[in-house]
Amino acid sequence: MNIEPIGIIHSCFKEKFGIPRQPGLVDAAEATLQLLPPYNRAEAVRGLEGFSHVWLIFGFHATAEQGWRPTVRPPRLGGNARVGVFASRSTFRPNPLGLSVVRLTGIDCSGGVVLKLAGVDLLDQTPIFDIKPYLPYADALPNAEGGFAPENPESAVIVSFSATAERQLASLATERPRLRQLICELLAYDPRPAYRGDNDASRDYGVKLHDLDVRWRMSGDRAEVTALVPSGA
Amino acid sequence: MNIEPIGIIHSCFKEKFGIPRQPGLVDAAEATLQLLPPYNRAEAVRGLEGFSHVWLIFGFHATAEQGWRPTVRPPRLGGNARVGVFASRSTFRPNPLGLSVVRLTGIDCSGGVVLKLAGVDLLDQTPIFDIKPYLPYADALPNAEGGFAPENPESAVIVSFSATAERQLASLATERPRLRQLICELLAYDPRPAYRGDNDASRDYGVKLHDLDVRWRMSGDRAEVTALVPSGA
Repeated sequence: MNIEPIGIIHSCFKEKFGIPRQPGLVDAAEATLQLLPPYNRAEAVRGLEGFSHVWLIFGFHATAEQGWRPTVRPPRLGGNARVGVFASRSTFRPNPLGLSVVRLTGIDCSGGVVLKLAGVDLLDQTPIFDIKPYLPYADALPNAEGGFAPENPESAVIVSFSATAERQLASLATERPRLRQLICELLAYDPRPAYRGDNDASRDYGVKLHDLDVRWRMSGDRAEVTALVPSGA
Repeated sequence: MNIEPIGIIHSCFKEKFGIPRQPGLVDAAEATLQLLPPYNRAEAVRGLEGFSHVWLIFGFHATAEQGWRPTVRPPRLGGNARVGVFASRSTFRPNPLGLSVVRLTGIDCSGGVVLKLAGVDLLDQTPIFDIKPYLPYADALPNAEGGFAPENPESAVIVSFSATAERQLASLATERPRLRQLICELLAYDPRPAYRGDNDASRDYGVKLHDLDVRWRMSGDRAEVTALVPSGA
């Protein structure tokens, strides 16, 4: 079956590294979903404004050529134990389709159709194949058994900002009012790969958010954001 | 993007009429999902047994040629009011992809891989494009706002069985132990189209379940099952 994108994501996440492992974990992770012609008509989303959340079926476009694997190593199990690909949300799927529920914060039909989203785990330029309303009576099963991932992952990292980073945040406050929250929530979940062996306190990390390269340093369970460097600088 | 089925559904629902409007409403609606080669390997579902529910991304194969419509008339609104296709779970979508969460009751890897499912809203022979575990910490949002469908649809029809139907049920009890429950739950939601204008008490209805044609008669908010006729008889 051939499927075609009905929209495209414009997200704060410019690379795979740093993207939250599930949607909803980082509410300050914002994106817009721009519908493509011929679907960018206000009537196609009429009534959607009454729903607080929507499902997105999307393509793993950055990893589409990687192929599928029968088993994968989910970060939740420390990156060592293997589970079946169909018991995971891994990208190594036979059909590279992703599924995320995201918060719908607004709809702009002033020129085409743009959905405003929060709590995304979507890479910039992700193709969207379908939008469906989240129906709490059918979709919310709080007592379901969650296998090897029964609860939220830990957000155990304590985040601080260097004096330099504080100055840079302050100068960006008007343009990016939720940037501090975004960085704090992202780093709290420790985006480093689960299977790292090192605990090298001196190592620097970086993640691209919006048009910035956010740099930080780890020391035990503490992260210090050292600088916010404009991308390409 | 081209996607290919990874499995196929064998369901009690042999026609579109009568299928519950959402999964989970009718737990006695059972199906099996048979994985197709090369995906029918036990390792591809390893760890899935720890999850009580799974997401299925499937194709609306019976309506794939119908095309998309910018607005649809959901049964929930009486079949009259129009909402955008992306504010509904209608089949009239640009990409004919469905999304259902179903209960996983067992996994049989004795010859290939077969998942046993309950609470399905899937037509027999539905192609499945992906299976994902239901993650309650990420997927269950009981406080989400559900727009024009905030709650379960009403199940207001009272179901009874004629003496003939009772005899037929009794003779099928070994082969189909949940058949009575299936019929009661299905008819309680009144599968008749929402936009019917009539209230014709004399009209007979029929729905194909398994290899049976289940016949009933409506009178006000009461349904009497009159007979269970073998299909093709």
